[in-house]
Amino acid sequence: MIDQETVNSLFDMTYGLYVVSAADGGKLNGQLTNTVFQVTAEPPRMAVAIHKNNHTHSLIAASRAYSVCTLAEGTPMTVIGLWGFRSGRDLNKFAKVRHEAGVTGSPLVLDNTISCFEVNVKQTVDVGTHTLFIGDIVKGKLLAQGKPLTYDYYYHVMKGKTPRNATTFKPPEQTAGKTEQK
Amino acid sequence: MIDQETVNSLFDMTYGLYVVSAADGGKLNGQLTNTVFQVTAEPPRMAVAIHKNNHTHSLIAASRAYSVCTLAEGTPMTVIGLWGFRSGRDLNKFAKVRHEAGVTGSPLVLDNTISCFEVNVKQTVDVGTHTLFIGDIVKGKLLAQGKPLTYDYYYHVMKGKTPRNATTFKPPEQTAGKTEQK
Repeated sequence: MIDQETVNSLFDMTYGLYVVSAADGGKLNGQLTNTVFQVTAEPPRMAVAIHKNNHTHSLIAASRAYSVCTLAEGTPMTVIGLWGFRSGRDLNKFAKVRHEAGVTGSPLVLDNTISCFEVNVKQTVDVGTHTLFIGDIVKGKLLAQGKPLTYDYYYHVMKGKTPRNATTFKPPEQTAGKTEQK
Repeated sequence: MIDQETVNSLFDMTYGLYVVSAADGGKLNGQLTNTVFQVTAEPPRMAVAIHKNNHTHSLIAASRAYSVCTLAEGTPMTVIGLWGFRSGRDLNKFAKVRHEAGVTGSPLVLDNTISCFEVNVKQTVDVGTHTLFIGDIVKGKLLAQGKPLTYDYYYHVMKGKTPRNATTFKPPEQTAGKTEQK
C-alpha cells in the first residue's frame, strides 16, 4: 500500500491513450491502454502491459502479434467506453467500427485514430497482474491528421475514469469513479 | 529497418520527460528518459528502459533501486542538456543540482522537477540494447506546482533533440540533430 502523496506523484506522469488489438482464429478484440512504450530504438521494439484477465491478453498470447492505434483528441466518450469499459467476451467490439487487417493479421482501428503500428511479440514478461508483451515493430500506417489523445486530456478535460484492469487504476475511494471490466 | 511511415506513426505516441537517478557507494548519477511506465496497479509497479552503456545503468544494477523525477514544463534547455547529453562518467551531474537522498538512497532531484518517486527493483529484463528495470514503488514526494514537461512540448516547442541512447532515438538523417552520449 502506498500513501496519497505517492499516488499523487504518479499522476504527474504523461501517457497517451491507445487501442491495442489482436486477432486469433477469426476472433478480433481490442482494448484501451495507456501503457505502450518503445523500449529500444535499434531494432525498434515496443512493450505493452495487458491485464491477464482481459480477452485481448488471450488473443495476443495466441497470435504473438498486436496492433497499437493512437486515439485522436476529440474521440467521443462512447468510443472510449467501448474500448475501455466493455469486455470483448460479451460483444464484438469491431462490429460497428471500421477496421482492416494489418500485415500481422491484427486489426487496425480506422475510426477516431490518427495512426497505427503493429508488433510481432518476441518476449513475454510476467509482472504480476499484467503481462508485458515485448516485440519488434513491423509496420506503421498514418490514418488522419490530428492531435493524439493524452491521458491528461482524458482525465482533466473529458473527466474520464480509469478502467478497472488498467495498470494505473485507482480504487473508487480515490477516484469516486464507477468502473467496469474490459 | 522500418520505413518512414512507420517512424512517423511512432511519433504520435505520448511521453513525459523524467530524470532517472541512482546511487551506489557514494556515486550518484541521473539521466534523461521518456520511457518510464507503470506496469501494474496492485501492487503499484513501475518499469524503466535504460541503455546498457549508460552510467545510470551500472548504478541501478548495483543498488537495485532508482528514483524517477518528473521535469517541469519550463525546464531550461541547459538542464535538459546536463541530464540527457552529458555522461556521468565525465562529470558529477549532481554537483550543482539541489538534491536529497530518498528512502532507497537514490537521489531526488529538487531543481526543475514537480515530483519524484522511488522504486525497488524486483525484475530485470534484457530487451537488447536496453534493460527494463521493473520494481515496486515505495515512496513519492510532491515538490512543486507546475505542468509536467512532455516529449511533445520538448520536441515541437523547445525544438529539442533526442539523446543517442534513448529508446526513441532517430539517426541524424531523420532528425537533423546533433547528438551526444549520456
